Amino acid sequence: MIIWKNLTAEQQQALLDRPAIANNEQLSKQVADILSQVKEQGDQALFSLTEKFDGIALSSLQVTQTQVEQAKKALSTERLAAINTAYEQIKSFHQAQQPQDVVVETRPGVICALTSQAIESVGLYIPAGSAPLPSTVLMLGVPAQLANCDRKVLVCPPDQNGKLANEVLVAADLCNIDEIYTLGGAQAIAALAYGSQTIKPVCKVFGPGNRFVTEAKKQLSQQVPGFAIDMPAGPSEVLVIADSNSKPAFIAADLLSQAEHGPDSQVVLVSESESLITEVEQALAQQLAQLSRRDIAQQALTQSRLILTDNLTTAVQVSNQYAPEHLIIQTKDPKAQLTQIRNAGSVFLGAYTPESAGDYASGTNHVLPTYGYSKVCSSLSLADFYRRFTVQEITKAGLASLAPCITELTDAEGLDGHKRAVTIRLEQQATQEQTANPIEQSKQQGEGQ
Amino acid sequence: MIIWKNLTAEQQQALLDRPAIANNEQLSKQVADILSQVKEQGDQALFSLTEKFDGIALSSLQVTQTQVEQAKKALSTERLAAINTAYEQIKSFHQAQQPQDVVVETRPGVICALTSQAIESVGLYIPAGSAPLPSTVLMLGVPAQLANCDRKVLVCPPDQNGKLANEVLVAADLCNIDEIYTLGGAQAIAALAYGSQTIKPVCKVFGPGNRFVTEAKKQLSQQVPGFAIDMPAGPSEVLVIADSNSKPAFIAADLLSQAEHGPDSQVVLVSESESLITEVEQALAQQLAQLSRRDIAQQALTQSRLILTDNLTTAVQVSNQYAPEHLIIQTKDPKAQLTQIRNAGSVFLGAYTPESAGDYASGTNHVLPTYGYSKVCSSLSLADFYRRFTVQEITKAGLASLAPCITELTDAEGLDGHKRAVTIRLEQQATQEQTANPIEQSKQQGEGQ
Repeated sequence: MIIWKNLTAEQQQALLDRPAIANNEQLSKQVADILSQVKEQGDQALFSLTEKFDGIALSSLQVTQTQVEQAKKALSTERLAAINTAYEQIKSFHQAQQPQDVVVETRPGVICALTSQAIESVGLYIPAGSAPLPSTVLMLGVPAQLANCDRKVLVCPPDQNGKLANEVLVAADLCNIDEIYTLGGAQAIAALAYGSQTIKPVCKVFGPGNRFVTEAKKQLSQQVPGFAIDMPAGPSEVLVIADSNSKPAFIAADLLSQAEHGPDSQVVLVSESESLITEVEQALAQQLAQLSRRDIAQQALTQSRLILTDNLTTAVQVSNQYAPEHLIIQTKDPKAQLTQIRNAGSVFLGAYTPESAGDYASGTNHVLPTYGYSKVCSSLSLADFYRRFTVQEITKAGLASLAPCITELTDAEGLDGHKRAVTIRLEQQATQEQTANPIEQSKQQGEGQ
Repeated sequence: MIIWKNLTAEQQQALLDRPAIANNEQLSKQVADILSQVKEQGDQALFSLTEKFDGIALSSLQVTQTQVEQAKKALSTERLAAINTAYEQIKSFHQAQQPQDVVVETRPGVICALTSQAIESVGLYIPAGSAPLPSTVLMLGVPAQLANCDRKVLVCPPDQNGKLANEVLVAADLCNIDEIYTLGGAQAIAALAYGSQTIKPVCKVFGPGNRFVTEAKKQLSQQVPGFAIDMPAGPSEVLVIADSNSKPAFIAADLLSQAEHGPDSQVVLVSESESLITEVEQALAQQLAQLSRRDIAQQALTQSRLILTDNLTTAVQVSNQYAPEHLIIQTKDPKAQLTQIRNAGSVFLGAYTPESAGDYASGTNHVLPTYGYSKVCSSLSLADFYRRFTVQEITKAGLASLAPCITELTDAEGLDGHKRAVTIRLEQQATQEQTANPIEQSKQQGEGQ
């Protein structure tokens, strides 16, 4: 337990600093090499890299509709129902996020609009480690479906038999994914960015991944013009704000659910109650023993932070300074703290709102900014599958009323071509509207020279 | 004039490809060196780099309120009025973009919300080349003001007397900029990302700049955790879609207003009318001679594209393939083409809507995605000064109704810590609500083991 007020400002910041991500030159070169293989050799590189990294020689990359239908039949009724419930929950929340056009007549005859268009083609990366991740398929697939992107492409590394998990295929089918490929790692991101004989390139790639995937996303987004990624990635993290009203067993369970993600998971508890922190420590020890992934969780817990503050206001300040991916507020009146929260990816209010609920089925997205990026990046939402652009339409009278402003500013900025684009239109006011060649007309009237 | 249908698909794409941005290793190293100087030496490096690159030894970096007041007095009534009019226009359009919270009860007892918070501190980079750019101050400053960011910091390179232009200071004052520094180039971006003795770091930097600034934004956004930039940058560009109803003189003026930005500006005209293209060519030659920046414009025009298509539908397809920053549609019924437009930064409809209007005063933002990035990036808008995050609140009954879905999926994904965070809460249902130590209670009832 760390007593916050006993630390200097520098010590406080150091306590909340994320572990430095090693600038791994070897990883960077290895990924760059994979990317250039895919760029140069296309499908051939995809097959050989899959054999090298996933240990399987595939005969084709694309999953067929027959395989999807087989997956549906292979799953239990309970599992199909669970995937379907999560799908409906996520859909319910995301479809309420449809972008609305903004139209303003900023002055008579000057109409400005902000409108949205779905990104034409999107790539969804689904990791496959120890277990399938249908929840991530839904978190990426549902907003892509709701935005109605023309091409929704899903990639996921094959298992040792060259297959994708039934759960992944069923979730993808619910989201009307257009193309599914058994392909993972940096080579999958390269295929989505460059394209190959089999896979046409996409405009934007979404989704979590291991360090190869993350490095490939980073390199390609810097390298390929017009290619974008969802957000920067770091280890997953949770911060819990608690008071003496909180239930230690619930908090311990929440901390452990974060810790079991990986040895680099970040787990932080901030409380004004010393006894609460002590009780959580006891509950952690007790519950840890029951976890199947206790070795992973234990490693993560060695990096955990249990911080005692004078009051909840300071606890909220600590949270804002840390800017957590997940923020759980288990206090007597969590909404009172919420009004002070500035930086977070997703917030969980009260005793009965575990992070697990948001990870799977409350309806919110589980792709969230980590590593302090919640200060500047948004949680994944429907908006990320769109771009906004502006449209303006001005009448001749509207342009005339703006002209003094525009021409004064073009003078200030020394751009007389910009000025001329306005004045040439207003000079025309004196001439006939239907003139076939306004330049000639203008010359005849001795204007514009 | 290029006849579109006579080209192969590869030739068509090559025609629309942006010129490759040279991977300039020398620039990259030079900028990296500047960044590390600022990181290590702070203010001292800022002063010495300003002396080196801007040729002026400053005694202080920050502009005082007295200097701002002097700037107001120094400007003509007309210029003050023009800045004020542009400010009001931009404000009128951007304040209509205030983000709205989304709240959905996705099922009884499960409430999900998407909410927004202003980014706490923002840096606004204003270039200063041949002339001051008050319009850019307004395009960045107005949304920062409307979002009510806590710290709005403006940086702009000093002139040969160590001053900023009066127009820049007056526009900054209108936007309630909190801190103004006479500082430009890569060193300004480094100061905003790392901080120095005088300048506290900011979370996100906005604005255009030369290749040093662009390279610094790119490097720092990759390097400094939690630091973000507005969007990738490339040369400015316009594409005009025209038919036989279009006025060649207007189109020529629009193409030239783009061409005068710089020798690398991109200028594209697409029309179904051969005679229109010929007339525009004539008008271009005639109007070019009158421009003060004709040498710059002429260089840009050597890279221009005049493309003849069979019909307007194909012209729109060409535009979508190119994905222009600025798109001007001067046809008989521009709204008919607009419905087919997928990719653009800002669209200008009809004969009396020159790009200049959007550059200064229609109300739309002139910071736009270039280089094909309008396929994936949004035009700068109020949303870029906010982040969205989610909030959920679940009742015990709500959690119970979600539990079968969540626990089935945690089983599928092998995350029993996630499962336990749900089940431990529901086991408690049988116990007394006010139990001080629910673990003990749980033990007594033989649960949870």
